[in-house]
Amino acid sequence: MKFRISRSALVEAVSQVSKAVSQKTTVPILTGIKASVDEAGLWLTGSNSDLTIQVCIPIQKDDKELVNVEIMGSVVLPGRIFSDIVRKLPGDYVDWTVDERWKTTLRSEQAQFELKGLDPEEYPRLPQLREDQMFTLPADLLKSMIRQTGFAVSTSEARGVLTGILLQLKDGKLTFVATDSHRLSRRQTEVEAPETLSVENVVIPGKSLSELGKILADQTEWVDVIISENQVMIRANHLLFFSRLLEGTYPDTNRVIPQGGKTEMVISTKELLQSVDRAALISRDGQDNVIKWRVKAEGTIQVHSASQDVGSVLEEVSAKVTGEELSISFNAQFMLDALRAVDTDKIQILLTGTMTPFVIQPADRDDALHLIVPIRTR
Amino acid sequence: MKFRISRSALVEAVSQVSKAVSQKTTVPILTGIKASVDEAGLWLTGSNSDLTIQVCIPIQKDDKELVNVEIMGSVVLPGRIFSDIVRKLPGDYVDWTVDERWKTTLRSEQAQFELKGLDPEEYPRLPQLREDQMFTLPADLLKSMIRQTGFAVSTSEARGVLTGILLQLKDGKLTFVATDSHRLSRRQTEVEAPETLSVENVVIPGKSLSELGKILADQTEWVDVIISENQVMIRANHLLFFSRLLEGTYPDTNRVIPQGGKTEMVISTKELLQSVDRAALISRDGQDNVIKWRVKAEGTIQVHSASQDVGSVLEEVSAKVTGEELSISFNAQFMLDALRAVDTDKIQILLTGTMTPFVIQPADRDDALHLIVPIRTR
Repeated sequence: MKFRISRSALVEAVSQVSKAVSQKTTVPILTGIKASVDEAGLWLTGSNSDLTIQVCIPIQKDDKELVNVEIMGSVVLPGRIFSDIVRKLPGDYVDWTVDERWKTTLRSEQAQFELKGLDPEEYPRLPQLREDQMFTLPADLLKSMIRQTGFAVSTSEARGVLTGILLQLKDGKLTFVATDSHRLSRRQTEVEAPETLSVENVVIPGKSLSELGKILADQTEWVDVIISENQVMIRANHLLFFSRLLEGTYPDTNRVIPQGGKTEMVISTKELLQSVDRAALISRDGQDNVIKWRVKAEGTIQVHSASQDVGSVLEEVSAKVTGEELSISFNAQFMLDALRAVDTDKIQILLTGTMTPFVIQPADRDDALHLIVPIRTR
Repeated sequence: MKFRISRSALVEAVSQVSKAVSQKTTVPILTGIKASVDEAGLWLTGSNSDLTIQVCIPIQKDDKELVNVEIMGSVVLPGRIFSDIVRKLPGDYVDWTVDERWKTTLRSEQAQFELKGLDPEEYPRLPQLREDQMFTLPADLLKSMIRQTGFAVSTSEARGVLTGILLQLKDGKLTFVATDSHRLSRRQTEVEAPETLSVENVVIPGKSLSELGKILADQTEWVDVIISENQVMIRANHLLFFSRLLEGTYPDTNRVIPQGGKTEMVISTKELLQSVDRAALISRDGQDNVIKWRVKAEGTIQVHSASQDVGSVLEEVSAKVTGEELSISFNAQFMLDALRAVDTDKIQILLTGTMTPFVIQPADRDDALHLIVPIRTR
């Protein structure tokens, strides 16, 4: 194995696959990064038990030669240190040679590293997926769907299937749902899919999708999503992403989402966010991180929180209110997460009662929705 | 107590005194910030057992009114939450009132916080220092002296006096010394001091000086340093800084500093720093974080490190070498710390032997010096 590669391209690709490299040493070879060079370019692979990421640095891009191959081959290198080395090498190019015992030499200007490589045959192979369940959407849309739902997954491993994001597809409409049973986030969009394709109860680990969100650059390119029985594959330009699916049946969440409300409000997202953020300074001191809203017909929300030890906060945010006056208490962090996930300047909030779940959504769109279960207070 | 204050001035002052506020709750009132408003402005004080910082926000600055006092008074507020609140308040001004039970109201536009204050009489008083041992230097010079020595203090509480920086003054020359007995850093400068003033064995906790370094903005103003039996006070514009002194006798370090060397080198600081930084990627994997230099008469330093598990690194840095060829091994982190502390483009290194301490200093100045004790290797 012998080739020369652009260092900047290598740095970017290594940083992408590193997101999947195992930190634990239970399977030692998975703490490594697999590198294979062939006539297409350099393929890098990182993997842990849930997640595999493969990136290809092509021979050539935009008329610039990125990889110059002399001898094709493969090796597995220790992930963390290899990633540190490529970031700190001095030159624009790296000369990379591997001998028959996988001893690897990385040379860049005056610096020369020798690393003990491992046999690439011991590295797990990529899953082979049948491509009959496939749909397509823009990368930045997928990224925002992950960002707008992923925070609501359960962090408790005991909750099994709730640590994942539910993916559903019906009549060309893709839905992401995440819930920890105290709050729920849902995002929908139209995608390019065969008319007959219907996907149900596909649950992808929240952590896997969060890593995917980080490496899907703000590109305008399209990605393919391919679903098999126990794996999902996401294919973008020069990038393959595999995640195992979670087992178990995701609960039916449609029935918990209220239709309409007793009280409807339209509010500036930023003003409300800042006021809840301030109130959370006090509520964080208390047990349940609770803040209270008093919605007044004249067009204000009174935001209030009190902590026995520290003190209290009170402020008013102006809102367009229709329907009944109402008081409601909830977890401040859940509200902050939901408000930060909204991209629109104005939000609409639908309250159905003091003790029933309520809905936060963009004022002029119905493709995103956040639901919060209130907290009973004195 | 009732006044209005500029929020931006308050945010800056709170962030400065917060550096001294106690995180531990062994003395509960020290987790608070004391605020006193009088005809000079608002005084904020933060303190822990080692360190006290007091900042004054003056009534007026550059023709802008910063504080408008109605009723003078004092209160102690919970430090962390008070600091969070002032950062997040919405307006340009804060209206601050305290009642006779120290209940404090902070109002800024639509937001209103009520905090439980504490009796300021219970807050420790500032030490009173006699000002007969005093000298003066520019703030940015003091800051750089701290930065160029502080990293070398011992982090082991068992080493007592070595966790501090030694301050000496003789014939108008100020010296800072720090050592953990494996390396030493020394910085000297001329200061404005009475001719007769001589200071010996004054040892200031490294942590205290590091906090001072952070709050001494890159100002061109001058600071007074006032030394008493068990305290040092540093007085800048609107800022008072007190630290206790460490007890015990600081070792005489002059005799360990070699005069002249067998081998002298002049090298680009940046090139050497980057090459040691790369070599440290390998050495960090080993036990002692050791790298090895081979100094060659033809004008190169071979930088080498090897780790049994990972591999090795080898590179050459060009240098102007005079004297004997020599090999030497040392702790890579000590070298990185020293090279990062040097401000000049070129450095001079004086080696006296494979097993004797060696000196790193700016090529064209003798007011700064870093000494490293080598490590015996095979």
